[in-house]
Amino acid sequence: MGRVTDRRSVVHIETGADGVTVRRMEALTGEEPLEIRVGRAGEKRAPLAVTMRTPGDDVDLALGFLLTEGLIEQASDVMTAQLCAGSETPNTYNVVDIVLAGHVPPPQVDPARNFYTTSSCGVCGKASIEAVRTKSRFDVRTDDSTVDATVLAALPERLRAQQRTFDRTGGLHAAGLFTAAGEPVCVREDVGRHNAVDKVVGWALREGRLPLRGHVLLVSGRASFELVQKASMAGIPVLAAVSAPSTLAVDLADDSGLTLVGFLRGPAMNVYAGAQRVVA
Amino acid sequence: MGRVTDRRSVVHIETGADGVTVRRMEALTGEEPLEIRVGRAGEKRAPLAVTMRTPGDDVDLALGFLLTEGLIEQASDVMTAQLCAGSETPNTYNVVDIVLAGHVPPPQVDPARNFYTTSSCGVCGKASIEAVRTKSRFDVRTDDSTVDATVLAALPERLRAQQRTFDRTGGLHAAGLFTAAGEPVCVREDVGRHNAVDKVVGWALREGRLPLRGHVLLVSGRASFELVQKASMAGIPVLAAVSAPSTLAVDLADDSGLTLVGFLRGPAMNVYAGAQRVVA
Repeated sequence: MGRVTDRRSVVHIETGADGVTVRRMEALTGEEPLEIRVGRAGEKRAPLAVTMRTPGDDVDLALGFLLTEGLIEQASDVMTAQLCAGSETPNTYNVVDIVLAGHVPPPQVDPARNFYTTSSCGVCGKASIEAVRTKSRFDVRTDDSTVDATVLAALPERLRAQQRTFDRTGGLHAAGLFTAAGEPVCVREDVGRHNAVDKVVGWALREGRLPLRGHVLLVSGRASFELVQKASMAGIPVLAAVSAPSTLAVDLADDSGLTLVGFLRGPAMNVYAGAQRVVA
Repeated sequence: MGRVTDRRSVVHIETGADGVTVRRMEALTGEEPLEIRVGRAGEKRAPLAVTMRTPGDDVDLALGFLLTEGLIEQASDVMTAQLCAGSETPNTYNVVDIVLAGHVPPPQVDPARNFYTTSSCGVCGKASIEAVRTKSRFDVRTDDSTVDATVLAALPERLRAQQRTFDRTGGLHAAGLFTAAGEPVCVREDVGRHNAVDKVVGWALREGRLPLRGHVLLVSGRASFELVQKASMAGIPVLAAVSAPSTLAVDLADDSGLTLVGFLRGPAMNVYAGAQRVVA
């Protein structure tokens, strides 16, 4: 089974007048493929997606992926979800097998393609935003919760304090769910930032906590279209990022009524959308 | 047409005793979907992949993607490659249309799935590495070039100096191709780090420079399995990253004979594989 971290032999070099070259062991962040298979009871499950992820919380990752892609809406849409492999292969613990409830239509298309193009507009940012609007079950526009700017400013340090694997490897992304008062609710780490968010959302789905009204999701890197999509699909009203957002991330946040905070560093931040929820 | 950067209205907040709240315009990194369509002359081109990217160098991005996924091997495998849309949609300049030469088999499967699983081993890191070995045309093991550690240590500053868009937005990844002497050859920026690398590799394909023997590829973030795969497929002997590599990135570099440098910061660095090419 894949590991969250593993050790490798490394040559450490320091250049300059006092240069050194030493061989030593260091901990690295684990990365392994995860295949998500989906189907109905009694039928063969079909592979839906493969993602490179850090092992751990794999069922939550799969559930979060299905929810944020609009393929399921609630915990009762899933009959069983387990880490397993078919009888035809040795169990590498790199397959999550999802059995959908009878009332849920099985996925019929590649979700990536379905998401970003429509026949009416071709391939463009507007069509991408429209696709998310079509699939969203929760409307964060009706969420009138607010968060103090001083609470937001304290979140990166709180997220960092909970990054157990980062402390050992310095090499992975984190996503942290907080209350509007700044209390940590769920923190996950992964080599892929979209995976870290899916693990948080999948946990919330399993715990029956969706939609995540009144919560703040903090991500350790940048805010892309994809991360705003995932927050919106989970009903999270505030997404905050330590680094910069993209144009399409801001446009999607504007469209879906989500508050988007970027460059959340030290005492300062930029609010790119939904500024009414941030109390300065 | 999508833009490399665009301006948005932002509320800038500074908390604390001297707190300020001001609304101002800021430049953001552009993000738009790009669809890559592939087919043969006279036949309908089929959508192969959609990626969220920063507009610019889109044909290079598509060519680099096809090469690093093992679908083409050289410039002569492509008859035409152009930014365009079919007659059925308005032209959003978010589609690259690739016409393969007659001797090239059209892609028959989802490359992502094909890449990470094999029937013999199920889904695991070993199978992922084996899949890259099967597809690689160039063997970097036969590349006995070396690079001075002092040259490597100077590269992040040189890459940063060429990041024109980062200067305005602070919000995107970069990939820079350098000679072993540290001279910059090609630098590309993108919201997606894999896209930045594909743009560099696609440029090199178009310029007839593959395999990129004796070159160093520097990426601004972490080194994942996927980035080592792309470097290996382009015949680049040395991949350097400003941040940490993952376990599978190191294992693939080991397997393919590639030199992998991480935590390249200030005068120091870690060499995770192929240390014989780094002269301390």
